[in-house]
Amino acid sequence: MSFADHVRACNNADPARLIPLLAGDGRRIGWLLSDNAAALARFPHVFAVEKTRVRLVAEGNVETVSAAIDDVVEALVVERQVPKWRNETFDVMARWGERPLFRLDRGAVPFFGVRAYGVHLNGYRFVDGRLHLWIGRRAPDKRVAPDKLDNIVAGGIGNGHGVVATLYKEAEEEGGIPAPLVARARPAGAVSYLMQTDSGIRDDVLFVYDLELPADFTPKNSDGEIVSFELMPAGQVIELVRTTDDFKFNVNLVILDFAMRRGLIGVDDLEYLDVATGLHRPLD
Amino acid sequence: MSFADHVRACNNADPARLIPLLAGDGRRIGWLLSDNAAALARFPHVFAVEKTRVRLVAEGNVETVSAAIDDVVEALVVERQVPKWRNETFDVMARWGERPLFRLDRGAVPFFGVRAYGVHLNGYRFVDGRLHLWIGRRAPDKRVAPDKLDNIVAGGIGNGHGVVATLYKEAEEEGGIPAPLVARARPAGAVSYLMQTDSGIRDDVLFVYDLELPADFTPKNSDGEIVSFELMPAGQVIELVRTTDDFKFNVNLVILDFAMRRGLIGVDDLEYLDVATGLHRPLD
Repeated sequence: MSFADHVRACNNADPARLIPLLAGDGRRIGWLLSDNAAALARFPHVFAVEKTRVRLVAEGNVETVSAAIDDVVEALVVERQVPKWRNETFDVMARWGERPLFRLDRGAVPFFGVRAYGVHLNGYRFVDGRLHLWIGRRAPDKRVAPDKLDNIVAGGIGNGHGVVATLYKEAEEEGGIPAPLVARARPAGAVSYLMQTDSGIRDDVLFVYDLELPADFTPKNSDGEIVSFELMPAGQVIELVRTTDDFKFNVNLVILDFAMRRGLIGVDDLEYLDVATGLHRPLD
Repeated sequence: MSFADHVRACNNADPARLIPLLAGDGRRIGWLLSDNAAALARFPHVFAVEKTRVRLVAEGNVETVSAAIDDVVEALVVERQVPKWRNETFDVMARWGERPLFRLDRGAVPFFGVRAYGVHLNGYRFVDGRLHLWIGRRAPDKRVAPDKLDNIVAGGIGNGHGVVATLYKEAEEEGGIPAPLVARARPAGAVSYLMQTDSGIRDDVLFVYDLELPADFTPKNSDGEIVSFELMPAGQVIELVRTTDDFKFNVNLVILDFAMRRGLIGVDDLEYLDVATGLHRPLD
């Protein structure tokens, strides 16, 4: 592995080879693998499948469109084209901040390649003047990236929740960080990538926060998603990113962003520009 | 103006409408407007102009290839297709860190659309706990962006110079920052964009540094490129970026990057993701 390998792994999708999923107004809301587009042809009252695009034709309010798409997802789950229901829904819209067009079960998000939003928190602390990061280890029964290392707090933004509400909720559940401490977290931008997986496309945007944690704070998980935490020297974290696959795929990018912003990667690193220009895919 | 307007202004070039300039080994080293590509057809011993690409065919070492291209530039200057000699050369290579293929006069860089590298320094200071930025005003006789506001230090990386050497040189000449102080500057990533201008394409990569300056330091220009400096509250700087064209086009992006990294733009800003994902165009 190398820094740039992680960037490439998360950006292995080529939009030119994907089929755009369009909303009724013609704006793109997802990216489909060709097999997935073909699988939607059986639902002509919901999707109009054409050679170079798929259009959402189900009409109505959020409830009715969501219900029509849920019926499609149910059929896809039965056929195992979508892994399973996650019973957690994401809002779908062409652009963050707009009113959602429908809600989609998280398990079907990659199938449709709709953009998903998450929040990641870098929890750090100085020990004897040396920067350390709190690193979690994901539970072995996690569907995505079991046993992998993770940020102290990370989670998807479910429907109806905002960035800040998700940060507070996940910080409490995943890391046991009390609200007055979370209030000190600072937004630091976003990491974005377009990744092809077995089940489809991950068009992810991760809102990134940094939080300096006091010496008397130790994270404590309460939702079963993280089995342990370790306070690691930042240099060790960066070397793990550089040389291993120990971190969950996208957490490598969040840590590289932190390292870049904090001056922890030198300009003489041969991959400096790959990292500096590889973590923030422009949104289309 | 808005934040995203600055991002768009610096990313107004569409690679699909440009003609790639290829090195002898087939790797792309520049982007040509179609008129500029056509103008090179008269120099078949240097460039092979085809319909969809232009290839560098001059062979030899850096000296001989540079000399062959200098002859082309001279002809283009006479015809006013290249504005004028700048008598400062940039190294040209497919990728940063490689051995240069040739040196090109800075005045001809946009004509050939070769990637240019620069260094920008955000000089900041806390006054009564409030973050301020040292902002310079460019001289009225500057060829590019006269009278515009600028970072305290910024400059192109000339041939044979590295990132760090350029930082020290420009910091001393532009801002009068002594070397022991420059040594405290921290790298913070890079800003990159692809911009079409009247004379061609700017494929720019700016190495970004931050430096906290002490209260007893006042910048002092000695190369005539900056006529005055002002210590501005960061909030005022960001509002100037948001609402005006007062800053040099690319300095808007450097300041937005600083603001994003420092948590000075809220996640509720409607352009938050445009900024977070618009400042670091992936290099191709």
